[in-house]
Amino acid sequence: MTEKITSGQNKKVKQWRALTTKKGRKATQTYLLEGWHLVQEAIKAHHDLTAIMGTAEQLADHAAELPAGVATYELTDSIAQTIGDTGTPQGIFATVPLPKDTAGDPQTADGVWLFLDYVQDPGNIGTMVRTADAAGLTGVVFGKGTASRFLPKVLRSMQGSQFHIQLVEADLHDWISAFTARHLPVYGTNLDRNAKSYRDVPPLTAGAIVMGNEGNGMAPDLQQMTTRNLYIPIKGQAESLNVAVAAGVVMFRLVS
Amino acid sequence: MTEKITSGQNKKVKQWRALTTKKGRKATQTYLLEGWHLVQEAIKAHHDLTAIMGTAEQLADHAAELPAGVATYELTDSIAQTIGDTGTPQGIFATVPLPKDTAGDPQTADGVWLFLDYVQDPGNIGTMVRTADAAGLTGVVFGKGTASRFLPKVLRSMQGSQFHIQLVEADLHDWISAFTARHLPVYGTNLDRNAKSYRDVPPLTAGAIVMGNEGNGMAPDLQQMTTRNLYIPIKGQAESLNVAVAAGVVMFRLVS
Repeated sequence: MTEKITSGQNKKVKQWRALTTKKGRKATQTYLLEGWHLVQEAIKAHHDLTAIMGTAEQLADHAAELPAGVATYELTDSIAQTIGDTGTPQGIFATVPLPKDTAGDPQTADGVWLFLDYVQDPGNIGTMVRTADAAGLTGVVFGKGTASRFLPKVLRSMQGSQFHIQLVEADLHDWISAFTARHLPVYGTNLDRNAKSYRDVPPLTAGAIVMGNEGNGMAPDLQQMTTRNLYIPIKGQAESLNVAVAAGVVMFRLVS
Repeated sequence: MTEKITSGQNKKVKQWRALTTKKGRKATQTYLLEGWHLVQEAIKAHHDLTAIMGTAEQLADHAAELPAGVATYELTDSIAQTIGDTGTPQGIFATVPLPKDTAGDPQTADGVWLFLDYVQDPGNIGTMVRTADAAGLTGVVFGKGTASRFLPKVLRSMQGSQFHIQLVEADLHDWISAFTARHLPVYGTNLDRNAKSYRDVPPLTAGAIVMGNEGNGMAPDLQQMTTRNLYIPIKGQAESLNVAVAAGVVMFRLVS
């Protein structure tokens, strides 16, 4: 059963528009997936969908892949353009429940984790989650100051990896202490050229890698809690690497 | 000598505003550096500057580092806000000459080069140039379809690496043929899981790595010209890596 919506003043349309804000997500306990790629990733992962919304054309194009039993809404083209964050929306969306448990448990977490300390750029954050997924990590912990994983730009650059690996919001002090108490190595990253090279440590099968803020790097108090802090040697004259590139280089060296 | 400009209708102000367009850059044969970091990189590299423009505050803050003999213009805050591309300009800018020779010579080029085939996202392009600089490459060739290196967003993400390594615009067919004729390895990248892993080739001291379009990868005709095409094995469920992350992983494995 598909309900047609033709008024931009419709209550549901207003709720969907509000999903680009934290307040709007909290009100309905859902967040928005924009575009077929993300909707498809949720379907493939058998993730709960609370609604599917699209233009007549988009709903018809993907009819064979849309799951039965999910409330579906047909939108006019002009309404579809007012939902979501992208300048040129594809005209298909879904809403999914906000995860209930975002805390995770550092006492039992296994495999390798990426810890994000005060990473601010949404594109960098989403790209690191996607790379962590590709490199075979278990999950990513969003520490204090790190932008929300429900921001439209984070969701876009994650490309659906939130359905593949665990994402947790927590205090990194707790996770670093728990891992080191369990004798799992936690490798911080450091801009100091005298730190140990990332090439000089053994591969990780369980433990964590910490990436810090784009401008300032990892917080000094967290650096003092890690097993060791690693540096990526720079051969040329660039002062530093983009944080998502640095994370990729380290994860593919130590984990994948 | 600093000239004060108080009218937004000033001819020079109009020229500077036009530098975000190709036509504007061509008219004055210059391009725009926005923000102190990029201006400082140009100064440190002893690069020619044709003008320095800034608010009274910014010019005073950086007076000790500004080179003598360059035409300097003091702008009102409101004029400074109309120049350049960033939403929150820092209030300091410089213009530098467009490079005269952008062709390069694949017959004599030495070291390792990054070839970009139809890469479209300005942030990805700039990040790859910055990473190539950090990894110790000699230069980057901007092939057909790759966005211009003078776009404001490319310039921002390069972070001044255009002053450290060579940037060339050319047909990649010519560069790949010339390198392979000189027996220099050219490694393409491939999304085919049956291709050779990037870990299974020896380090490069001279040659090239080719990165392709974000959605479609390298053009098939170029793939057939390379020495070999490499694949980055994906362990998790992500379908692919961001192109700038993939380039970083390969460059730091094969070159740095």
